[in-house]
Amino acid sequence: MSIISLTTDFGDFYPAAMKAVILGINPTVQIVDITHYTRQAGIREGSFALYSLVQYFPKGSVHIGVVDPGVGTSRRALAIKAGSEGKEQYFVGPDNGLLIPAARRLGEMEVYEITNPELMLKSGISATFHGRDIFAPAGAHLSKGIPIEDMGPRISDFVILDFENFGIDGPFLIGEVIFADIFGNIITNIPQEVVFKFSTFGSQIKVNGRRISFVQTYGFVGQEEPLALIGSHGFLEIAVNKGNAALQFGLKSGDQVVIKTV
Amino acid sequence: MSIISLTTDFGDFYPAAMKAVILGINPTVQIVDITHYTRQAGIREGSFALYSLVQYFPKGSVHIGVVDPGVGTSRRALAIKAGSEGKEQYFVGPDNGLLIPAARRLGEMEVYEITNPELMLKSGISATFHGRDIFAPAGAHLSKGIPIEDMGPRISDFVILDFENFGIDGPFLIGEVIFADIFGNIITNIPQEVVFKFSTFGSQIKVNGRRISFVQTYGFVGQEEPLALIGSHGFLEIAVNKGNAALQFGLKSGDQVVIKTV
Amino acid sequence: MSIISLTTDFGDFYPAAMKAVILGINPTVQIVDITHYTRQAGIREGSFALYSLVQYFPKGSVHIGVVDPGVGTSRRALAIKAGSEGKEQYFVGPDNGLLIPAARRLGEMEVYEITNPELMLKSGISATFHGRDIFAPAGAHLSKGIPIEDMGPRISDFVILDFENFGIDGPFLIGEVIFADIFGNIITNIPQEVVFKFSTFGSQIKVNGRRISFVQTYGFVGQEEPLALIGSHGFLEIAVNKGNAALQFGLKSGDQVVIKTV
Repeated sequence: MSIISLTTDFGDFYPAAMKAVILGINPTVQIVDITHYTRQAGIREGSFALYSLVQYFPKGSVHIGVVDPGVGTSRRALAIKAGSEGKEQYFVGPDNGLLIPAARRLGEMEVYEITNPELMLKSGISATFHGRDIFAPAGAHLSKGIPIEDMGPRISDFVILDFENFGIDGPFLIGEVIFADIFGNIITNIPQEVVFKFSTFGSQIKVNGRRISFVQTYGFVGQEEPLALIGSHGFLEIAVNKGNAALQFGLKSGDQVVIKTV
Repeated sequence: MSIISLTTDFGDFYPAAMKAVILGINPTVQIVDITHYTRQAGIREGSFALYSLVQYFPKGSVHIGVVDPGVGTSRRALAIKAGSEGKEQYFVGPDNGLLIPAARRLGEMEVYEITNPELMLKSGISATFHGRDIFAPAGAHLSKGIPIEDMGPRISDFVILDFENFGIDGPFLIGEVIFADIFGNIITNIPQEVVFKFSTFGSQIKVNGRRISFVQTYGFVGQEEPLALIGSHGFLEIAVNKGNAALQFGLKSGDQVVIKTV
Repeated sequence: MSIISLTTDFGDFYPAAMKAVILGINPTVQIVDITHYTRQAGIREGSFALYSLVQYFPKGSVHIGVVDPGVGTSRRALAIKAGSEGKEQYFVGPDNGLLIPAARRLGEMEVYEITNPELMLKSGISATFHGRDIFAPAGAHLSKGIPIEDMGPRISDFVILDFENFGIDGPFLIGEVIFADIFGNIITNIPQEVVFKFSTFGSQIKVNGRRISFVQTYGFVGQEEPLALIGSHGFLEIAVNKGNAALQFGLKSGDQVVIKTV
């Protein structure tokens, strides 16, 4: 029994086609939906979802990611093996950077282009739904133990994406908003180890000029008060207790966050 | 290990009751949610979802469809076997046409009325939730291999629904909007083989009087430009690249689409 | 093969982290999403969801509920065994009342505080996501048959929640709105056995002063007419046939409902 996760922007209905194809190839696999609604921030949001969750999946898991605005063009299809020996996980999706941060987080990686028509949908490849026609069958075959080398040639010139445009610059901690979740919590790309070099719990900081508390959790501030905290992803988050920080701070995916000590 | 798919308009929460009943009868079945949000177009939308996906499911799959405005009235409950010998799939749901296009797409079919109380929920049948009380147990029993003849008598006067009100009339290609997806893409009932008798990729066509390009995929037109394409369902779709065609064209489920060569 | 259900207010994306942890511990468990969107009424809505569904799950099922505004504070984590011998089901979640009505509905129950760090996430416990770090591993271990006594000490001073603030008072039947579903149907806490002591199908009743019919199902009234019925949960519901009762009656979660005979 192995696991296939799905990260897409397909919304309702289309993911079922991928699942039908997957279960036709591997009837006993466990399918986990990560998200089918990465609309706001597209590739960056889907990529971060996978990046922040991958460490919780057991070895052998296969992650299919399909946020794929280039479908039907000449962009390549990728299969990736990542992680130290005996702990590998696998990734399948378009060559647009989506899979790279998650794979890199696991350590060493090998990247292959999927070119083998034997491992694609037998009834033909559409121009608009490679999630169903290429990535679902590729992921299902990997989950059954087919060697990744069978997918196609190994490559090294794949598209890169990273979340590492953060840092401390004197009195400033600078990062980027990755996305806001359904509660309006603002998730940044600044990892906790960098935050703790800059500040400590109980401090006051300024976020884009507004003074807030950096605390362990919501209960440390009053209702409707803003706070900074280390979110469950392990990154700095800006939130409002029982409120919507994205609205209050006017911050959205891709915006720069500048934090200053007080 | 077999598969049960679910297509309903139940939204959140109620599908879990169906899943609990199913797993109580068949603990190892794989459950796939097709949709629980066929609100806009009701029976036609749910029916089309099942119709367009059924070909991707493996033999032996059981499809439970419950878009059922007549629940609690005298409308009958159906179980259907469809497809050529050795490749059969099964369908369970109300006698309102919902299941018929998908079953017909597989070829020959046999239709039975579900009347056997032994195959319904033991704790009683509610007036409002046959999805849980009748269709979930019937589908679970079929997924375990119970003969469909045990469900009840075979019938032939079931309610018909089809998606075949399309055709070429001189310079016109005429069809119907089945539904608009969450991206605002307009899915019509005109299959690709009919479209290709009428036009070829690269042509200009007029949709309800507006001139657009008929192309392979989104990348062939500029941002916010409209296009016609063969969607991943294999039917003609009207879309706007990074835009909402349903809004721009003012088309909704059930509307007629008139396409003209330019 | 056993079952774990999930009832949370996490929305998209976060439930996948719980599933990854669960499947890492018990690779063959069946996971059923009850809801991840109990936003409107919080603990009461999540609690009622579990309470109304629990009877449909088979013995041995484990229900993880995480509507948890007190996460990161000193509120305790609970594991509960409930039901008569040989028919037990299990519950895991915060000590805020969420799990109690469902557990009580099954009969006798034993409540334990989860304190055993061996049964928590090995890589550390966050301040904000006990669903992933404590409740998911606890539930997964229970689904594999670990004795509930291993979780921690048995306790008796847990937080209580019930749905029993209803009753007949002369010509009045009084209850509370638990929540309104996505159709705008108003679900109350008044069970059918109490309703039938007060009225019979076919009667006219007044709901908050407005006269409506108490009937078996929607089809008994005209389109856009209001009705009272016994919903599929087994509780009194107020609905509008093809309309939104929550809007028309101005009723929301927590409001009192006063019903009068006519």
